[in-house]
Amino acid sequence: MSASSPDSVRPALQDRRNSLLDETILAPGTVKINVQGAFIVDDEEGQEEDLSEDGAQRDTRDIRLPNHKAVVSHVALDIGGSLAKLVYFSRELSSKELGGRLTFLKFETDRIDQCFKFVHELKTKQQALNGCEPGELCVMATGGGAYKYYDQMKKLLGIEILREDEMECLIIGLDFFITEIPCEVFAFSETNPMHFEEPRADIYPYLLVNIGSGVSMVKVSGPRQYERVGGTSLGGGTLWGLLSLLTGATTFDAMLAMADRGDNTLVDMLVGDIYGTDYGKIGLKSSTIASSFGKVFKMKRQGEHEAEDGTGLSNGDEQPQNGSMSPKRSFAPEDISRSLLYAVSNNIGQIAYLQCEKHNLEHIYFGGSFIRGHRQTMNTLSYAIKFWSAGEKKAYFLRHEGYLGSVGAFLKRQPRNWGRRNSCEK
Amino acid sequence: MSASSPDSVRPALQDRRNSLLDETILAPGTVKINVQGAFIVDDEEGQEEDLSEDGAQRDTRDIRLPNHKAVVSHVALDIGGSLAKLVYFSRELSSKELGGRLTFLKFETDRIDQCFKFVHELKTKQQALNGCEPGELCVMATGGGAYKYYDQMKKLLGIEILREDEMECLIIGLDFFITEIPCEVFAFSETNPMHFEEPRADIYPYLLVNIGSGVSMVKVSGPRQYERVGGTSLGGGTLWGLLSLLTGATTFDAMLAMADRGDNTLVDMLVGDIYGTDYGKIGLKSSTIASSFGKVFKMKRQGEHEAEDGTGLSNGDEQPQNGSMSPKRSFAPEDISRSLLYAVSNNIGQIAYLQCEKHNLEHIYFGGSFIRGHRQTMNTLSYAIKFWSAGEKKAYFLRHEGYLGSVGAFLKRQPRNWGRRNSCEK
Repeated sequence: MSASSPDSVRPALQDRRNSLLDETILAPGTVKINVQGAFIVDDEEGQEEDLSEDGAQRDTRDIRLPNHKAVVSHVALDIGGSLAKLVYFSRELSSKELGGRLTFLKFETDRIDQCFKFVHELKTKQQALNGCEPGELCVMATGGGAYKYYDQMKKLLGIEILREDEMECLIIGLDFFITEIPCEVFAFSETNPMHFEEPRADIYPYLLVNIGSGVSMVKVSGPRQYERVGGTSLGGGTLWGLLSLLTGATTFDAMLAMADRGDNTLVDMLVGDIYGTDYGKIGLKSSTIASSFGKVFKMKRQGEHEAEDGTGLSNGDEQPQNGSMSPKRSFAPEDISRSLLYAVSNNIGQIAYLQCEKHNLEHIYFGGSFIRGHRQTMNTLSYAIKFWSAGEKKAYFLRHEGYLGSVGAFLKRQPRNWGRRNSCEK
Repeated sequence: MSASSPDSVRPALQDRRNSLLDETILAPGTVKINVQGAFIVDDEEGQEEDLSEDGAQRDTRDIRLPNHKAVVSHVALDIGGSLAKLVYFSRELSSKELGGRLTFLKFETDRIDQCFKFVHELKTKQQALNGCEPGELCVMATGGGAYKYYDQMKKLLGIEILREDEMECLIIGLDFFITEIPCEVFAFSETNPMHFEEPRADIYPYLLVNIGSGVSMVKVSGPRQYERVGGTSLGGGTLWGLLSLLTGATTFDAMLAMADRGDNTLVDMLVGDIYGTDYGKIGLKSSTIASSFGKVFKMKRQGEHEAEDGTGLSNGDEQPQNGSMSPKRSFAPEDISRSLLYAVSNNIGQIAYLQCEKHNLEHIYFGGSFIRGHRQTMNTLSYAIKFWSAGEKKAYFLRHEGYLGSVGAFLKRQPRNWGRRNSCEK
């Protein structure tokens, strides 16, 4: 890793760094990675996999940095309300390959000890991974957990922990992905689910919508010029929480798989259910969702009325639930999942659009672990932006959507031991 | 009822009307009601009551119109996705009182036949109520059900049905309440739950947020100048639907009563749960809700992990649910109700604020049957507007919040038989 200008850098080093900078494209953080020729790994080594024995999930591909040769002595960790996201660098082990790669891992925040255990193992492997001494590793930490788990982390790992602001890390990470990584940023459409954007420099201003447990919306006017303009508490945590109560699902992916099979019109009240037709005068189609879950209360009451009337449950699509608290009418978990996914995604899309209107922004980047590359989610978010803006604004997604904060923390500042390590590298 | 100027009015009538107009304050609709001295009835006759034998709910007070003497030959009906709202006029039966009164009734849309039955009874009582012949009654209908149930209604009632646009009726009704009725419009604060606004004429522009099953947001620039600028599918139907699935509650009022007793912090993930402290840099307090229902998935998973670890369910606040599908961790229906009420209300408040920003509006009126005079709901909506606008914008509520559309339909246009009836009135 080459680097920025710590004020106290020695003159001899400065010469050396100038030549390194020739090979270096400036990244938005003050730490410079040599990203020349960087690409997302498509071979099986970089494949998504579930490393369940240690609680880590490797759900996105590595990024190869073939021209980065300097020592890296830090890993970065973004600890959110539900998930902890880890990014670390390792030199290529194969002698025929140059440079190194960034690897991306997720852990559940509730099992944060497994995450720390993993980082501890990385510490012992530093020599092989990066050529630095185990004692020299440090952790760049961001997200709420960087504060909440600071003491625990410091004690367990026995190494330096540097904390960075969450919003700043998010935008440094996003800037890096937009400007430097090919085949990273894409627009979604049903006919072309990954229409990639070329990396480009002229990116400001834009809105970042980061969807984790909750949602943050950040207006970005320039490098490190940002303001958290809003957000909503209706985010991933809401979807996961309600669906874990309403369906039997115990994982995010199971919930999304159910949503794929569901039909929300059996749960939602559409304009057509109220009007019997379009509400043409104000441009609402009969298929527009008027009220999410709007059919549920009605149908449950209907069941009661029928019971009161002595007619019983005559509706053919009644599916009795097991258990003593079975409702008069029940609803398929698939339909419930799809309805709630639509509701949460649409709502985020609308608020994002309105924030863009208020702040005069055209481009919207959706990040965060909520999206998980899921088609319906991206389709709904894209549709909401298109619908509300009448096609004026555009939604973009990222393949490493969940890692903006951790990549930003990785890039944000050079750990203090950089100067010494860099002087003796190679 | 005195009236507006139908083009075909006869000269002799015109003279008479001019004198009537002297006693008449112009209402925003083309039909003029003599609202001089109008007031909300506070005696027990106008009390809220549940007329459960015929499915009608009289949940708001009558409005006395002591100076209105003309014949009224129509009732108004606003049929929404969940509720049908009826407004009718009756002359005072007591000989010592002059004028008449408006009465307000709600029916469930799913039991619309009971509503039609009630209107049919009104028809037979017209002579006594209003001095008009039963055959001369007509129904001014609005809301989606005016279209969906048009044929059924016409056939059952055997009288004329005039349909009016829903949004237009909403704003005509609201304009009437704002400009004419004392002690109707109020601002909410915890120390003063009903701080009444004086009726006033200079009311434009404003935003109407009408919360029924779904939510419509209407920008109003002048009398009958309006545009539906947005809305959200996360409305009353969402709250009622999800709570009927998640709690045992079968009525709106039972749900609100549960919410009153609940503690949302046992269900929601707060900033403090993520950070362990405030996130001061961007002004988020530790008590801010970061993710609605954000604790649920975590705690259910925790239960599973503990089960896997062989430690079982050690948490003292575990409340086992009855039934075979009991989750690993369960949550109190009261806490769930409060969380969802907050989530829906906060979300509507934020979107309303953003629509005001986009359209440069300062005053926001919240209407619709979702609110039901409920303190927590109004407190949350008021707080959201105050929070997001940093005190710049103000939320107003109405005592007849659910009847904007039906009152608007009542006032909107003079039914065709007006000319003849008015000529022979008294």
